Amino acid sequence: MVVKIGIIKSGNIGTSPVIDLILDERADRPNIDVRLVGSGAKMNPEQVEEVAPKIADFDPDFCIFISPNPGAPGPAKAREILSAADKPAIIIGDAPGARVADEMDEQGLGYIIVNADPMIGARRELLDPTEMASFNSDIIKVLAATGAYRLIQKTIGEIIAAVEAGEEVELPKLKITAEKAVEAGEFTNPYAKAKAYAAYEIASKVADLDVKGCFMVQDSEKYIPIVAAAHEMASTAAKLAVEAREIEKANDTLCRTPHMGDGCIGNKCVLMEKPEK
Amino acid sequence: MVVKIGIIKSGNIGTSPVIDLILDERADRPNIDVRLVGSGAKMNPEQVEEVAPKIADFDPDFCIFISPNPGAPGPAKAREILSAADKPAIIIGDAPGARVADEMDEQGLGYIIVNADPMIGARRELLDPTEMASFNSDIIKVLAATGAYRLIQKTIGEIIAAVEAGEEVELPKLKITAEKAVEAGEFTNPYAKAKAYAAYEIASKVADLDVKGCFMVQDSEKYIPIVAAAHEMASTAAKLAVEAREIEKANDTLCRTPHMGDGCIGNKCVLMEKPEK
Amino acid sequence: MVVKIGIIKSGNIGTSPVIDLILDERADRPNIDVRLVGSGAKMNPEQVEEVAPKIADFDPDFCIFISPNPGAPGPAKAREILSAADKPAIIIGDAPGARVADEMDEQGLGYIIVNADPMIGARRELLDPTEMASFNSDIIKVLAATGAYRLIQKTIGEIIAAVEAGEEVELPKLKITAEKAVEAGEFTNPYAKAKAYAAYEIASKVADLDVKGCFMVQDSEKYIPIVAAAHEMASTAAKLAVEAREIEKANDTLCRTPHMGDGCIGNKCVLMEKPEK
Amino acid sequence: MVVKIGIIKSGNIGTSPVIDLILDERADRPNIDVRLVGSGAKMNPEQVEEVAPKIADFDPDFCIFISPNPGAPGPAKAREILSAADKPAIIIGDAPGARVADEMDEQGLGYIIVNADPMIGARRELLDPTEMASFNSDIIKVLAATGAYRLIQKTIGEIIAAVEAGEEVELPKLKITAEKAVEAGEFTNPYAKAKAYAAYEIASKVADLDVKGCFMVQDSEKYIPIVAAAHEMASTAAKLAVEAREIEKANDTLCRTPHMGDGCIGNKCVLMEKPEK
Amino acid sequence: MVVKIGIIKSGNIGTSPVIDLILDERADRPNIDVRLVGSGAKMNPEQVEEVAPKIADFDPDFCIFISPNPGAPGPAKAREILSAADKPAIIIGDAPGARVADEMDEQGLGYIIVNADPMIGARRELLDPTEMASFNSDIIKVLAATGAYRLIQKTIGEIIAAVEAGEEVELPKLKITAEKAVEAGEFTNPYAKAKAYAAYEIASKVADLDVKGCFMVQDSEKYIPIVAAAHEMASTAAKLAVEAREIEKANDTLCRTPHMGDGCIGNKCVLMEKPEK
Amino acid sequence: MVVKIGIIKSGNIGTSPVIDLILDERADRPNIDVRLVGSGAKMNPEQVEEVAPKIADFDPDFCIFISPNPGAPGPAKAREILSAADKPAIIIGDAPGARVADEMDEQGLGYIIVNADPMIGARRELLDPTEMASFNSDIIKVLAATGAYRLIQKTIGEIIAAVEAGEEVELPKLKITAEKAVEAGEFTNPYAKAKAYAAYEIASKVADLDVKGCFMVQDSEKYIPIVAAAHEMASTAAKLAVEAREIEKANDTLCRTPHMGDGCIGNKCVLMEKPEK
Repeated sequence: MVVKIGIIKSGNIGTSPVIDLILDERADRPNIDVRLVGSGAKMNPEQVEEVAPKIADFDPDFCIFISPNPGAPGPAKAREILSAADKPAIIIGDAPGARVADEMDEQGLGYIIVNADPMIGARRELLDPTEMASFNSDIIKVLAATGAYRLIQKTIGEIIAAVEAGEEVELPKLKITAEKAVEAGEFTNPYAKAKAYAAYEIASKVADLDVKGCFMVQDSEKYIPIVAAAHEMASTAAKLAVEAREIEKANDTLCRTPHMGDGCIGNKCVLMEKPEK
Repeated sequence: MVVKIGIIKSGNIGTSPVIDLILDERADRPNIDVRLVGSGAKMNPEQVEEVAPKIADFDPDFCIFISPNPGAPGPAKAREILSAADKPAIIIGDAPGARVADEMDEQGLGYIIVNADPMIGARRELLDPTEMASFNSDIIKVLAATGAYRLIQKTIGEIIAAVEAGEEVELPKLKITAEKAVEAGEFTNPYAKAKAYAAYEIASKVADLDVKGCFMVQDSEKYIPIVAAAHEMASTAAKLAVEAREIEKANDTLCRTPHMGDGCIGNKCVLMEKPEK
Repeated sequence: MVVKIGIIKSGNIGTSPVIDLILDERADRPNIDVRLVGSGAKMNPEQVEEVAPKIADFDPDFCIFISPNPGAPGPAKAREILSAADKPAIIIGDAPGARVADEMDEQGLGYIIVNADPMIGARRELLDPTEMASFNSDIIKVLAATGAYRLIQKTIGEIIAAVEAGEEVELPKLKITAEKAVEAGEFTNPYAKAKAYAAYEIASKVADLDVKGCFMVQDSEKYIPIVAAAHEMASTAAKLAVEAREIEKANDTLCRTPHMGDGCIGNKCVLMEKPEK
Repeated sequence: MVVKIGIIKSGNIGTSPVIDLILDERADRPNIDVRLVGSGAKMNPEQVEEVAPKIADFDPDFCIFISPNPGAPGPAKAREILSAADKPAIIIGDAPGARVADEMDEQGLGYIIVNADPMIGARRELLDPTEMASFNSDIIKVLAATGAYRLIQKTIGEIIAAVEAGEEVELPKLKITAEKAVEAGEFTNPYAKAKAYAAYEIASKVADLDVKGCFMVQDSEKYIPIVAAAHEMASTAAKLAVEAREIEKANDTLCRTPHMGDGCIGNKCVLMEKPEK
Repeated sequence: MVVKIGIIKSGNIGTSPVIDLILDERADRPNIDVRLVGSGAKMNPEQVEEVAPKIADFDPDFCIFISPNPGAPGPAKAREILSAADKPAIIIGDAPGARVADEMDEQGLGYIIVNADPMIGARRELLDPTEMASFNSDIIKVLAATGAYRLIQKTIGEIIAAVEAGEEVELPKLKITAEKAVEAGEFTNPYAKAKAYAAYEIASKVADLDVKGCFMVQDSEKYIPIVAAAHEMASTAAKLAVEAREIEKANDTLCRTPHMGDGCIGNKCVLMEKPEK
Repeated sequence: MVVKIGIIKSGNIGTSPVIDLILDERADRPNIDVRLVGSGAKMNPEQVEEVAPKIADFDPDFCIFISPNPGAPGPAKAREILSAADKPAIIIGDAPGARVADEMDEQGLGYIIVNADPMIGARRELLDPTEMASFNSDIIKVLAATGAYRLIQKTIGEIIAAVEAGEEVELPKLKITAEKAVEAGEFTNPYAKAKAYAAYEIASKVADLDVKGCFMVQDSEKYIPIVAAAHEMASTAAKLAVEAREIEKANDTLCRTPHMGDGCIGNKCVLMEKPEK
């Protein structure tokens, strides 16, 4: 059986660019097929209302809606639409989403809140397309190297397995903290784990500065250094996450969890060996 | 007027995750609206045939199809579909796409070939979702910091401007070489430019190793080091690209090209100053 | 006139090791003389009660009491003693001290709260003398390179000047935030400033993890990674602070504020030039 | 029994800021209590004469006097005072102290000479409070990571144990060379040991440049580069010492010697394990 | 028996400065003696004709001619001279030499082609003696750390052994690819091997840029960034090669192949142990 | 006129591999021609006696003899031979050569002593061909980036100019200290200069450890860490020298002194500009 996964992307968080790829990293997983609709950078109710229903055209077995702040008006609209539909649906969002966790629960929606997926420094003096991409690169590096993406891989993998097995889907209620991320990271060296933990925590704090710089301070002399500092923190977090990964590589203990020939998740540590189920 | 841009993503290259975001980095550009459809990691004809026509539902002013190797069967199908449609369309792809440049020309399609957007090391022993995301992070960093994304921003910006002005769209025929990327990078320091150039060239060579490791060598004892080396090259290219950007930052000459209040592209160098048109 | 400064140290924060040296970095400042008493690492009421009154033996013009958490029992005792004495007195402490700011105000005490001077990871599995010193090295680097120490230098410098001039001492009520630290840092390059700001913020968050690891989590399997992560954050903050300083060095714009021949604070940027008043 | 340790600090070397903390890194060692008196940055006979006798007020079991150059007039005065007193006393100083080793021996004083604790670049064009603190940070890092502080911990620990046991104190006659420091560092990896050794040697040479730049060259065009170079050497030594420590961390073999519940010195290598006696 | 080796150097490649030293790294190998003649940086036929025959004065058992591009006129002349002589001779050259491999074979000459020994950026705006030496430093680092020099050591070692044993010399026909270099590198850690492989590949691509910048582009505005980029690539390759070596050091598995007391090649990994045959 | 330079190399120091190349970095200098003879790694009297006289066959205008320790027996023999010959001759050696400076003066020989060109760690447990080349790479980097090679270039350049002009040659009596090296380095940024100075000083100290490890300590448990530490110092010095160079590059002030079209030495700073005489 091929499980069909419908993904709706509105606006962007660090998990958005890779959420579909995480499920099928070599494009050869036999048991899933992904369909995407999206509204690019914008995530207002008008965009969401136009794109979210479209996913139904692809008749997915379950849906994922991913955006910044699940509590914002656009994502709220998406939650409404998906809650009303008859397919299992999961909301993936950043830390502010925790505020509507109970609400999502009541709406019958699963959720994954990625704490270290911070708001960008959306001030024109700092943020051009190049800076935006560079920032996303840093956050992707943090979320990859710390284990956060692996936890998402496994969480969604369980849904896929349930659908495949014809079982009822248990929707995730997951807030990815540093503890949970680095546990999924399966570090062998404790200092690598500590570095990953620290990287995740630093990335988690980036949003504090960006919220301050974008919404709370209006004088450009003051907010530019703040949002620039936030991006420096993101870049530093990325470097630290890479350090963690390099330690595991130096010990040839880097955990890898590729999808296997039958679509399930394998596991391996020693680079020259094959993964096992 | 709001220009509606339809983007179809099948499979993934380093430009895919950010192509829509590049056009509207702060989600506040007033004169465009983006709609996406996609098929996730897979890019076979069957996926492409299902998703590509769907973009028409959003009635875009022009379309972008982005995937690896525009000459592969899936993308070939997409080109066929888009060529037959009556909207301007652009194909964005990686270096192997250069082989079908003339064909795209004959099909009435524009194209952007990103030389330094290399094939990934798609061997199960190396490539799990974490490694995949980490590799994409590196390539995004290279393409951002060298200037390649800015060149894409400007190239598509010209199409948007033409549509907005009611003029005929001149479709791009662009192969992004190191020279062109770093020219768009607008480096002030010549060594920063040289480092960016070198980073772009190194990234361009990653594909050679990955093609060798994925298709030409079948013994895992031999191909694992090759694809692992390719990823080390990508990571090194990213570091070098960052070095280039850091030099410009240290001189406070980093070029930024944010979209302005009216949607056109601004320009600035000094961090504490406002961008100008 | 030689202003005599009495300093009492109980317990240790990152500012403690250098507080006296900051005032007289080359040991040749003609207009001050410093006397210290202290109780080493311990800061319980019994130690404080024994050492704090001793400073009076040196007949200082004003006093500084420096310790972790000014609200803790030992420092509370010190505040009581100093408040009752007839000499101007300043409390220097870390972020938890902000909770007793009003109280210090009422006690007629000045205060300097150093936000980025975090609690150490005081778990035996992590913290031996070597790790302790290494952590202090990192915090000292952050507080030096971001500008926090310079702000302390200037703040106490004003008290010295007032005493020297026979004026009434205006006691400082200073919470050193990232903004205030980097302002004192007098960075010329805005990215250096942003890096310093980020370093200060990261250091400020170290305490969150250390408090969690030391007081809130009791399972060593869980708290060791947390306190180890806190120390990785401190180390990363130090590296980032150094980056900021190196940028200013590369531009030959590094601000220096040495004490001049007459004891006042000079200022200079260009390394090969003399400082000026 | 609680051993009471009296420490007198006059002037500053890289060991001064942490000498008391090294003995009680978590402020919970049950069997010692420390009292400090000091004269800040200055170390002239007049300061020493005032502060040194004061330590007696605390009735210490033994005393430590720490300062630069034990042969200088102020420290000479301190040696005289301590020699005349009836408590065991130890002088801690930097490399020039070796010249009065025999003299100290005759005075019945123990001594610890820290070869890699160099004179600072005390020229006003370079040395402001920020540079001073930054330099101390580097030296503290070198002395911590190479093992020098551990050797001091153990050396003074033996005195404490002797006092505690009511035995006669054997005063140390210790010159901390690179060999002795890295032996105390207990490196498992031989390259880490070599890096630590090299870091210690580089730090040992810093003083040569600082002495030249401070005392032997009078033209500021010439001495500024020399003292600036000395500080670059210190910074480089710190980086190399960190490299050594990071290797041990990557192998999870980093030696730690925390004080145990009963105050004796424990030992551990594996981060997640408890220390043992 | 002492094997006498005659080496002729004309012009310079990254292997030239150390080719003789590689055979006798501690100057104590008992069974060889080396004689050199050379023409410095120049390698035109007139220089080669004067120096090449001179090597015969030393009556060597076999000869090595090392230069850039064995197909160029000067080296062609050298091949002619050596082919006509009655001693075994080997040509060592860079990648362009592969084009005359068959020719060398027909001439009865052995050869070693070092793929990653690239042409320098010989443009006056970039290349002064300092830049030249710095570039050579980088290439030497790459060729050393990846294993290329060890492969040359072993290859020539076999010739020496044959001469010593009175056997007929089997002339090498060796093209040093990344695969062959890292095999000789004997890396234990697979990521170290991958980094070395990547470093070798990057160095191999340097020549592409330098050929373009030196011969194919004539506008200095264009060629300066190209040759500067080539040197940045070389520098980056060196850093990556060092990373590989540092990993092996951190694991204490760094392979070393010193010449033993009898002149044969030993082998060791653990630093503190003796090499074995 | 073409000045013919005869160079004799016996044994190796860090200057040896590039001494001839420094004079003609692009192999196109019209007014010199170089001839080399050498004895490889060995430098005993028997080798020197065989090779040194051979240089006369090329009829050079002046001669350079380069080796470690000019006072050792082999080099002493070379000095004797060159002193007896009727051509101007210069000895280039490392720091121990300073001990025979007067003697060389009496022999009518010029000399260049390169203080930072240290003895290698010639212990079999450490030094194989790979380590040897790697060490030389580091030393070459230090001597290039600090300015030492430029000073040699200029010093020999003056001899060439004198010969060319038919003037009497004034033989150099040059000891390259850190001061002289960095003066030739022509750094614009004072911190770059300080880093270069520090790098040169660190390299100068490498020999102390290598002499100790090779000649004064006989227990391999002790001498291996010492010689390994010496090589770490060399590697650190190289990194610091590179930092200095990178600062000048970041400011586009890197001094370059290429040989011009007529063979004289040009000068330039701005990368994109032509050098001037």
